[in-house]
Amino acid sequence: MARKKRILSGMRPTGKLHLGNLVGALENWVRLQDDYENYHLVADWHTLTTDYEHSRDIPENILEMVMDWLACGIDPEKSPVFVQSHIKQHAELHLIFSMLVTQARLERNPTLKEQVRDLSLETRMSYGHIGYPILQAADILIYKGEFVPVGDDQVPHIELSREIARRFNTVYSPKHPVFPEPEPMLTKFPRFPGVDGNRMSKSLGNTLLISDEPDTIRKNIKTAVTDPQKVRRGDPGHPDICLIFTYQNRFNKEEVPEIRAGCESGALGCVDCKKRCTEKIIEYLEPIHQKRAHYEKHPKEVLEIIEQGDQRARKEAERTMAEVYQAMGM
Amino acid sequence: MARKKRILSGMRPTGKLHLGNLVGALENWVRLQDDYENYHLVADWHTLTTDYEHSRDIPENILEMVMDWLACGIDPEKSPVFVQSHIKQHAELHLIFSMLVTQARLERNPTLKEQVRDLSLETRMSYGHIGYPILQAADILIYKGEFVPVGDDQVPHIELSREIARRFNTVYSPKHPVFPEPEPMLTKFPRFPGVDGNRMSKSLGNTLLISDEPDTIRKNIKTAVTDPQKVRRGDPGHPDICLIFTYQNRFNKEEVPEIRAGCESGALGCVDCKKRCTEKIIEYLEPIHQKRAHYEKHPKEVLEIIEQGDQRARKEAERTMAEVYQAMGM
Repeated sequence: MARKKRILSGMRPTGKLHLGNLVGALENWVRLQDDYENYHLVADWHTLTTDYEHSRDIPENILEMVMDWLACGIDPEKSPVFVQSHIKQHAELHLIFSMLVTQARLERNPTLKEQVRDLSLETRMSYGHIGYPILQAADILIYKGEFVPVGDDQVPHIELSREIARRFNTVYSPKHPVFPEPEPMLTKFPRFPGVDGNRMSKSLGNTLLISDEPDTIRKNIKTAVTDPQKVRRGDPGHPDICLIFTYQNRFNKEEVPEIRAGCESGALGCVDCKKRCTEKIIEYLEPIHQKRAHYEKHPKEVLEIIEQGDQRARKEAERTMAEVYQAMGM
Repeated sequence: MARKKRILSGMRPTGKLHLGNLVGALENWVRLQDDYENYHLVADWHTLTTDYEHSRDIPENILEMVMDWLACGIDPEKSPVFVQSHIKQHAELHLIFSMLVTQARLERNPTLKEQVRDLSLETRMSYGHIGYPILQAADILIYKGEFVPVGDDQVPHIELSREIARRFNTVYSPKHPVFPEPEPMLTKFPRFPGVDGNRMSKSLGNTLLISDEPDTIRKNIKTAVTDPQKVRRGDPGHPDICLIFTYQNRFNKEEVPEIRAGCESGALGCVDCKKRCTEKIIEYLEPIHQKRAHYEKHPKEVLEIIEQGDQRARKEAERTMAEVYQAMGM
């Protein structure tokens, strides 16, 4: 049997996840876990790059996020679930890689440029923040990750990881490359909309959480923006610009042709359309909530799962670092 | 009995040390080891900031340097001698500190500016190179170093370490500061001249090595530049601008008044002056060579000393990291 290819999937621990995380990443991870060997990283050190002042929230946020992962179907037997800061070797490989990348190269990172602009960081940008794509490269390469499921905005970072892998191999191990060159696996729904039509994101307050109670979901979808030209039933709508239609597309696939027709003709009003969508989402989330309730009652189980994942990841990281130092002759 | 204050002393492993290292640092370390608790760091990761392509030379260079340390009187029972890359926590604390320092602050580092100019680095400067003062801060603070023996050129780095200690304490542990603010201990001879009159440095090929055989010392001092206005015996000389006089001052202290008078009057010629100086240096180095010969025959003893130092340092580093994570609530 051929060896399964390895995937490195990671998220910053932001606490309870939302449907954007589910649709944009988590479902994909679950789908891939039979055909690949997946490493699921809780990237807690990364949180410090933009939010070092709230480090106290990290343990709780890790627990909430991992409960969502497990509830949504990540199988920790197949796929180790582990925490970055528990595996010191990430920091060590990051330090070694940081000698192989120029400052100028990091400053060309388009995502970083966007952040500088959006957060008005300019001279306040921390050294660690500028270097986070190097930390990502260490996260991926320490497990010799061959694929990384990401949205388009992360593609430049994977390109940097490839450059670092090549550079290390060229400088230290030209005959027996230590690192693979990881490839991005683009996710299908990288920009799932929140109830205001913008990308779903906690910082925008427009989320539907995976763990939200049915009534909360109902309430939040009621407030959602639809096609502004469709004011009342009878007005013809434009489903392709409507966020509810995006939700239908994902959670109510089989009724989509009928809904499109009803919206465009005007026969289906937004209130009814939202109701049908809402109930489908609630139905979809029900087994997830049942599974989550178990972990909420038994948080120690979650911590044990992480502990086991840490052990598996650490063994792998130690093995890679031994190869790294051997290649470097240190 | 009052607790001894703690010193962190470090050198990059450059292989065999020269008299500039001895007079500018090592003698000072030996002198301090009774009154302070000294931690002696072999800063091998730092070597990678400017010389990552020669990592293969590091193990040999560590051995040669530590043999010089021990031969010159560092007592590993009093003072742990250990290797940075053996203590992963340096990389970990470096990563955490890197969130607390802005890129702009690092770019104001005058020593870095000099290096950019001297090595024409500009756009080729690596990310790790720019961040090395943060790694230094981690080296010092992970052992809660209170003093750091340095030359003037390193004072700005110690200032950055103080800033990082303050910043960490303010953000994470205002009531019970985790870190002291380390202070520089200026060394008396920070710029010991090589035989061409420039600062003694391997890259300039002007060194007298601690481990040089007497004949090598004799040969090299013969070529040394003296006062250019004193061409032959009888010409009055200017000892204060003569590098041999600097050597006399350090290795032949009791004859200095007589030598000054002889040089200034012209009665003492440069050839004789050099001979007297040379023999004093050889005499000084003799017991050092004897001790070094023992370690050269028993390199395993040196490796064991390092292993023991690593253990002592690691214990301390683990303790500090536990405090760090507790303060951060992680």
